[in-house]
Amino acid sequence: MMKTDNLNDIVEAIVAELRKKTSFEIEASARHIHLDQPTIDALFGAGHQLTPKRPLSQPGQFVSEERLTLVGPNGKIANVAVLGPARKQSQVELSLTDARTLGVTPPLRESGHLDQTPGVTLVSASGKSVGIESGVIVAQRHVHMTPSDAKLYGVKNGDVVDVKMTGDRGLIFGNVVIRVSDRFATRMHVDFDEANACGLTKGMRGTIYKK
Amino acid sequence: MMKTDNLNDIVEAIVAELRKKTSFEIEASARHIHLDQPTIDALFGAGHQLTPKRPLSQPGQFVSEERLTLVGPNGKIANVAVLGPARKQSQVELSLTDARTLGVTPPLRESGHLDQTPGVTLVSASGKSVGIESGVIVAQRHVHMTPSDAKLYGVKNGDVVDVKMTGDRGLIFGNVVIRVSDRFATRMHVDFDEANACGLTKGMRGTIYKK
Repeated sequence: MMKTDNLNDIVEAIVAELRKKTSFEIEASARHIHLDQPTIDALFGAGHQLTPKRPLSQPGQFVSEERLTLVGPNGKIANVAVLGPARKQSQVELSLTDARTLGVTPPLRESGHLDQTPGVTLVSASGKSVGIESGVIVAQRHVHMTPSDAKLYGVKNGDVVDVKMTGDRGLIFGNVVIRVSDRFATRMHVDFDEANACGLTKGMRGTIYKK
Repeated sequence: MMKTDNLNDIVEAIVAELRKKTSFEIEASARHIHLDQPTIDALFGAGHQLTPKRPLSQPGQFVSEERLTLVGPNGKIANVAVLGPARKQSQVELSLTDARTLGVTPPLRESGHLDQTPGVTLVSASGKSVGIESGVIVAQRHVHMTPSDAKLYGVKNGDVVDVKMTGDRGLIFGNVVIRVSDRFATRMHVDFDEANACGLTKGMRGTIYKK
């Protein structure tokens, strides 16, 4: 005969496993810069390659040793992380708090959707300066998802969902975009304003609340 | 016979009126300071009274002409608003972004619940400095409500509800405290992190989503 406390252990283990499978880690993205090769050339010298400092959760992506100062009409922000590798088009991702500091008014956008976005000036440690015409956005909150996790959650690339998280500042984020690729690891990304608004600490997880 | 377009006009007017009655304006509270009279005396001179600059939405409350610099272990923030009138105990309300800048770790609290909260140093324009032992908090999001509105919404003082708002960054805030007093005007207050996380602009309204 099965012993009750063993059964409880089994149930608890299954619930824990299911909970893990039906939720994903939420990461806070600090302000950061992606650069195209011509901008890298202009800021760091022709043919320069960004130097990986530490890997990010998304496979192949890294924080580089290179840092830049952002200069806008109202102010500047020093020591901003440059992420690698190089992209097709330079892109600056800010929080609305940052945007106010600089005096720019970026729209809420998915990564790479850069038409009609404002520019900003990038300044390197050696004092080289490049003004980009466009590319400044506030990133729409999103979940990077592997194809197998997308299948598990019953969502597809481009879906917009609500994501619930618990805690003292628990909330349900609306308008969260699902992005599916076999180049992704499954993680939700929010900016620092959003992370603070929900009291995010390392390891906190979210659940798709409504599809 | 009633004309259909007239009926539509009437329905639309009723819906707009109901929507207004079942929602309330959300205001972003910037970082600010409340002072007790001994601290006012120490910073601005014995018997000094705070000078009203502009009224706040809550009756009798005002932004004063006085401004202070906050100094913490890691940094300082200049030009912080002092709200009047004087209170029984000094209280500093910060966003988590501000707390990181100063290097303090305030808990999430309702206004006035100041036991076991960290202190900070307050510095006046003339260079007078006062260290408060406690009183620094991150304000728990809350709705100030008149007794008649509380009746309308079916909530009472101390209730914790969810509040929904729409828009590009629409979300549902959990753990929102209802505070009822005949000294209040009905307004929800969030800090700047929360305002940015939900893309708050002036006049946006929230609805009690779940009681």
